[in-house]
Amino acid sequence: MENLQNDLFLRACRKEKIDTTPVWIMRQAGRYLPEYRAVREKADFLTMCKTPELAAEVTIQPVDIIGVDAAILFSDILVIPEAMGMHLEMNEGKGPVFHQPVRSSSDVDNLKIIDPFKDLKYVMDAVKLTKKELNGRVPLIGFAGSPWTLLTYMVEGKGSKNFSEIKKFIYNNPKAAHKALEKISDAVAEYLSAKIESGVNAVQIFDTWGGLLSQSDFNEFSLNYITRIIQKLKRTNEPVIVFAKGVHHSLDKLTASGADVIGLDWTMDLGEVKLKTGGKVALQGNLDPTVLYGTEELIRAEAVKVLKSFGAGSGHVFNLGHGILPDVKPENAKALVNIVHEESRIIHSA
Amino acid sequence: MENLQNDLFLRACRKEKIDTTPVWIMRQAGRYLPEYRAVREKADFLTMCKTPELAAEVTIQPVDIIGVDAAILFSDILVIPEAMGMHLEMNEGKGPVFHQPVRSSSDVDNLKIIDPFKDLKYVMDAVKLTKKELNGRVPLIGFAGSPWTLLTYMVEGKGSKNFSEIKKFIYNNPKAAHKALEKISDAVAEYLSAKIESGVNAVQIFDTWGGLLSQSDFNEFSLNYITRIIQKLKRTNEPVIVFAKGVHHSLDKLTASGADVIGLDWTMDLGEVKLKTGGKVALQGNLDPTVLYGTEELIRAEAVKVLKSFGAGSGHVFNLGHGILPDVKPENAKALVNIVHEESRIIHSA
Repeated sequence: MENLQNDLFLRACRKEKIDTTPVWIMRQAGRYLPEYRAVREKADFLTMCKTPELAAEVTIQPVDIIGVDAAILFSDILVIPEAMGMHLEMNEGKGPVFHQPVRSSSDVDNLKIIDPFKDLKYVMDAVKLTKKELNGRVPLIGFAGSPWTLLTYMVEGKGSKNFSEIKKFIYNNPKAAHKALEKISDAVAEYLSAKIESGVNAVQIFDTWGGLLSQSDFNEFSLNYITRIIQKLKRTNEPVIVFAKGVHHSLDKLTASGADVIGLDWTMDLGEVKLKTGGKVALQGNLDPTVLYGTEELIRAEAVKVLKSFGAGSGHVFNLGHGILPDVKPENAKALVNIVHEESRIIHSA
Repeated sequence: MENLQNDLFLRACRKEKIDTTPVWIMRQAGRYLPEYRAVREKADFLTMCKTPELAAEVTIQPVDIIGVDAAILFSDILVIPEAMGMHLEMNEGKGPVFHQPVRSSSDVDNLKIIDPFKDLKYVMDAVKLTKKELNGRVPLIGFAGSPWTLLTYMVEGKGSKNFSEIKKFIYNNPKAAHKALEKISDAVAEYLSAKIESGVNAVQIFDTWGGLLSQSDFNEFSLNYITRIIQKLKRTNEPVIVFAKGVHHSLDKLTASGADVIGLDWTMDLGEVKLKTGGKVALQGNLDPTVLYGTEELIRAEAVKVLKSFGAGSGHVFNLGHGILPDVKPENAKALVNIVHEESRIIHSA
């Protein structure tokens, strides 16, 4: 067993006793940090993902600079479609582009089955190197996109306003859509299992686009495949976090997916969700990311609201309700971490 | 009293007995119709808004072509900020732009108080002309943006991904934000009252960006001002519809705003909301707009799901859960209207 100096995050995921609420920040290894931008100036985004030394460096930055209780391996959810054979282009400012998006059954058939230890070896190397450099200071999280979110990117091919292409695909070719989702699920399960074998202490599945779907479509096209992944994961006691943005209607169903932790966006009330899910899972979230534009006073007031909404007891991992925005001041992120530690100790000792 | 040949829409808004569920479609006067595009080729978007003959023409098109049970006056929510003194530019394909967005207290002070009968006379003229040309066939709806949604556009100045500017504004200058929201509320109340006086049979308030806010911020920065408008409206028995996209958490509070009808996006379950709101308001919605990309079979199956979710009894206005998309086939919109009429008659007569 690994000896972690700070295991608050893992303890909270498992609803074990804690005296301080752990906090990490989605996109914490990101552009708001000048230290990140300095690395980014030397290498493009995909090169950073594919160079273990650079990925490890930016992964550890927020642990050193911001003081978060967990690191999350710097990477991108689209490395999986790329490994499945899709040519990925990361355009500066314009977001990722697949010039040959998935649009037909034969496109789905052409998606390759991956061996993550070979096809995504650079990720596994980054995990090992990061673990070595972290040297047990905090746990390391690995992540992947949900099959629905990945398929959305793969079918749209580029940024979208109305997500017309993915919707046309599932409504007019549901068989091919399900086949694609199955293939992607298996790839994600293998990938996350390989990350766990390589050393990550927890995994998070991001369902960024689950909120585009009606309740029954969410169930059919997203939740089913998240559940499939969790069932297939090879793990011992590494917690699984599912973050499904905008999926206010299916939080109870998500608790039945096998996830240990449900991540919430900032429109949810932690206390209400805690009641609704009956304490069966831990909860992660959910400060409005734009609160970090405010003063330290405002940040404190809003962070305390989130902490009190969950209340005393374990099972809460503090986070933002979405990724940190690139124009946030690093000192505000740092202030947030201190505030969460400080204020939660008061709540837990009361 | 006006003698309407088809008052199904108004009866459903008032929860009076009906034998057929009425249906209209958000953005029904829009680009998916070749007849609309033909008018649009001759005049730019703002000219269409400001020329009563053109506005009336495209307003009536979906009544003739698609067979909807209500018309909604063609216009844009940004005519109010423009009347308040902001220079508005409608860029082809890029969306609306305010080159001098609201960013400070003095910008707020500079917003003009409007007299809708003078400053937006073209809208009132369009209402009168449309009413005359509709000649009692179906009711006419007038609309406005909510103060929060209008302020979001006024502060951002152009399309936004993260809505950073409006969030910075409310968190760092809440006093100015509230002053702006008050001024806009009063302008919207006067504007909708003038539309009612000019002849519209119902009004809809669009809170497109309410879903950006946490629950308490929604209450403070959006709901309060929607309530203020409804209280100030000069009306006799014209129903007020509030459509607040993504505001899953505050539907019960919206029923206390004085609205007669709550519009729902497609992530909500009509039956659940009906239970939650205790039948105090009528509900409008909420088919996923992308279902119209599917076959007639799919459209029927999904429309029936929506109808059955509400169930028998009055108080349901069928609509999409968001505006119709520009690349939908008009025949699919027409099919939807027929399907809703046909299938709802079966439900109501059972």
